Amino acid sequence: MEKSVERYGILELTFSGPSTGNPFLEQKVTGRFTGKNETVTADGFYDGDGVYKVRFMPSFTGEYRYETDGSFDGAKTEGTFTVTPAKEGNHGPVRVVNQYHFAYEDGTPFYPVGTTCYVWNHQKVQVRKATLSTLSKGYFNKIRFCVFPKHYDYNLTDPKRFPYEGTPMDASVLTKDNFYWYSAHKEGNHFDFTRFDPLFFRQVEKSILELQALGIEADLIVMHPYDRWGFSEMTKEQDDLYWNYVIARFAAFRNLWWSLANEYDLLTKKTVADWERYADILCKKDPYRHLRSIHNCHAFYDHTRPWITHASIQRQDLYKTTEFVSDYRIRYQKPIVMDEIAYEGNINHAWGNISGPELVRRFWEAAVRGGYATHGETILNDSGLLWWSHGGDLYGESPARIWFLWEILKETPGYGLKPWSEKPFTWDDIVAVPEEDRYQGEYFLLYFGNFRPSFREYYFDEETPYRIEIIDTWDMTISDIGIQKGKIHIPLPGKEYVAIRIRKERNA
Amino acid sequence: MEKSVERYGILELTFSGPSTGNPFLEQKVTGRFTGKNETVTADGFYDGDGVYKVRFMPSFTGEYRYETDGSFDGAKTEGTFTVTPAKEGNHGPVRVVNQYHFAYEDGTPFYPVGTTCYVWNHQKVQVRKATLSTLSKGYFNKIRFCVFPKHYDYNLTDPKRFPYEGTPMDASVLTKDNFYWYSAHKEGNHFDFTRFDPLFFRQVEKSILELQALGIEADLIVMHPYDRWGFSEMTKEQDDLYWNYVIARFAAFRNLWWSLANEYDLLTKKTVADWERYADILCKKDPYRHLRSIHNCHAFYDHTRPWITHASIQRQDLYKTTEFVSDYRIRYQKPIVMDEIAYEGNINHAWGNISGPELVRRFWEAAVRGGYATHGETILNDSGLLWWSHGGDLYGESPARIWFLWEILKETPGYGLKPWSEKPFTWDDIVAVPEEDRYQGEYFLLYFGNFRPSFREYYFDEETPYRIEIIDTWDMTISDIGIQKGKIHIPLPGKEYVAIRIRKERNA
Repeated sequence: MEKSVERYGILELTFSGPSTGNPFLEQKVTGRFTGKNETVTADGFYDGDGVYKVRFMPSFTGEYRYETDGSFDGAKTEGTFTVTPAKEGNHGPVRVVNQYHFAYEDGTPFYPVGTTCYVWNHQKVQVRKATLSTLSKGYFNKIRFCVFPKHYDYNLTDPKRFPYEGTPMDASVLTKDNFYWYSAHKEGNHFDFTRFDPLFFRQVEKSILELQALGIEADLIVMHPYDRWGFSEMTKEQDDLYWNYVIARFAAFRNLWWSLANEYDLLTKKTVADWERYADILCKKDPYRHLRSIHNCHAFYDHTRPWITHASIQRQDLYKTTEFVSDYRIRYQKPIVMDEIAYEGNINHAWGNISGPELVRRFWEAAVRGGYATHGETILNDSGLLWWSHGGDLYGESPARIWFLWEILKETPGYGLKPWSEKPFTWDDIVAVPEEDRYQGEYFLLYFGNFRPSFREYYFDEETPYRIEIIDTWDMTISDIGIQKGKIHIPLPGKEYVAIRIRKERNA
Repeated sequence: MEKSVERYGILELTFSGPSTGNPFLEQKVTGRFTGKNETVTADGFYDGDGVYKVRFMPSFTGEYRYETDGSFDGAKTEGTFTVTPAKEGNHGPVRVVNQYHFAYEDGTPFYPVGTTCYVWNHQKVQVRKATLSTLSKGYFNKIRFCVFPKHYDYNLTDPKRFPYEGTPMDASVLTKDNFYWYSAHKEGNHFDFTRFDPLFFRQVEKSILELQALGIEADLIVMHPYDRWGFSEMTKEQDDLYWNYVIARFAAFRNLWWSLANEYDLLTKKTVADWERYADILCKKDPYRHLRSIHNCHAFYDHTRPWITHASIQRQDLYKTTEFVSDYRIRYQKPIVMDEIAYEGNINHAWGNISGPELVRRFWEAAVRGGYATHGETILNDSGLLWWSHGGDLYGESPARIWFLWEILKETPGYGLKPWSEKPFTWDDIVAVPEEDRYQGEYFLLYFGNFRPSFREYYFDEETPYRIEIIDTWDMTISDIGIQKGKIHIPLPGKEYVAIRIRKERNA
């Protein structure tokens, strides 16, 4: 029977080959996949036990053929396969549309409403199950998580497996007070940075697929500084081997986004030249051009770099965060995703102890400036788990409200919003309109945040009728107060977190 | 019987003189007051009905003599008087101490905790009484208000009296929608800008004295742009006449502060040269060197100007306000008083509709950065009055909490606080210590604002004992959790608006 694969699914070709020596370094396998509308070349990878694999994600339907080649007998194969239409819920990879926003490849708008669970994928089974169960509630459509395990406050236990063959340092010496001293520590670790553990990477793939099944994008953090095993201070050759391996294994997953690093500027041994080299490998080796970003701690990367598809930003200021989205849009001329704006929680660190209302406010401030924000939760309780790192259950007040915002965003004409400061609005209106000019004058979304007006008044013109809705972004209600024209008077509840949606009425 | 006056009180000398022609322009009277420690020269003024006055505020006790002179017979007098010690509650004028803070002339620290009632002094009797009754509760020790009447949203009625002889435009044409068009309007007004109405100015003086009786500083706004009568667009000669008159009448009041203008940058006909000229008149003619400031709308005045005693600032950003106090301290090297940071209220304008908790937070953010903030209230209700403009009653939640902050500030060693970012504190601690180095290491005040840590830990050294208090700035409680040394662990409630006070224990 001929092979068959769904559009944006994965065709995986498997080969038997040598298991002696170091196959990761010494062997190579590649595939070439040709359909009517595309020809794709992809590296394969060694998956252990003498097994090699090449993966391909087709972007079109129809008949395809493939040829493979490699460094060993049996790598040279060829054949044909059929690509069937995408099934329901499969919209393809997410792309940038109209400069500042996102859509799936099939044209469906994508409004990133993300969360953060850095190493949910490395937790034990029952925690992973709880995470997936929580995610299945549908609050989020993007999740930021890491390939490498994590060494950080509240995350001192070893992962189930390691990415490399070898043994880690003794974790029993670690305490909340001394863990900082083991950062990027190599002593006591005995890893061979040229021999991957395929089981570790299969676990990451399993996680990506589990997210895919839930309709969630995997915003995968390839490097990060929270390390006591030496993974953040490998040599240039070891880094490049890692990048090539990761790309060969993961690039064919349609719901993948590449985040080169979390807090790249804390990887003190890496230079801008290193980051640019990884980006170069990624641009050359990822045939699917997945979204690419790099995330800061203090200093922003230069997000104008051509390989960066969208700015993934951690707020620099303790007080003012997503209010800067409109500035960043001008500065970077790309989609702005504020991936770290502090988390709903109560831990000691200021990045992890803001309230639900404040986090939701930051989401809305981003939205009405034409950008996006990302959730995280760090609520200390008897569970011993912090969602931000481990996953598990959510206890906060923000997820339901973030979902509510998402529902509002889905009703935007066209693709996404942009900030607007023209008449009839004034200095104290924060207003969004559709990004695309063809919707000009039809839709306005205002957000008052911490301000509590008991009314607002606007005058567009004498003739045009507008439907006015008052949105309570915290109570999650939308009140239609009817159609007005001329001098529009909008009574408001005089409380925080209120928005107004004004839409031109077509059938009035 | 020999004349006698309290130290920092007012000796007022009265003369009969001409009432024909224009005495404001044509007549002059001055006084010279000499005691053991000072000689003061002060202009007098025409108070109508052929009466002239010269006022003097002595800064020392003991025997004084005076000589007066002038342009008419009877202005030339001389005599002696005794200055008795200041009575309880009379601490003299407020001065700048140690560069960034304030104290009364007798050395008592003064922590400005101000409010705003722009034209309370021009309201009818029962409203003025209500205002004074509210102020007598003791929430505030400084109030910002205007000499001239005010034309602005929510303030369209004419004052009881006008500063000049003449008649105003017909106020019945004004509406909430058209009032902007009458800004600095001269049409329909018939005022003689060379003839003051002494009754109007006596009303201002009465107000200053009523505040003095309550221990409240009168932060008097001499010019402002909210005008439909032409007072904001007089000629240079008329302006200078006004400034000289105001100084001659008001300078002897010990509780007076000079604010050259509110929102000086909205007085579009005035140039920096004009403001500098007024300042020059003030520096030359006010013998008591009362505090001098000038307040912005958008653009800050150059507060490094030598005549400016303290920066009186309106926040420029909608979101971040008093968090900039530490920056302004560096920029201006003077006391920072953030006199407009938005008001507790629910009116349509964003400057008048923040919550009580947010206003109190802004006060605390100022305090822990070594600066000060000012209150205002704009709560629309059946009273028809807005405290910010009319006075009357207060309905908000902030005044009691501002008072509580004031109580905390009063327990600062020395004069005032400064920001501090040294060990053992980290990037997410906002910490204040006493301004003066002699108290180094003795006192720390931390404020977490919107952050909600459930604990914090600090290590000073092994030996020194510190008393730890947890302050709930909203519930207004102080919990002494005892003395700790070495690794200090502070459990916190994990809610917003919490502060910590750490004091070195002397007797442990």
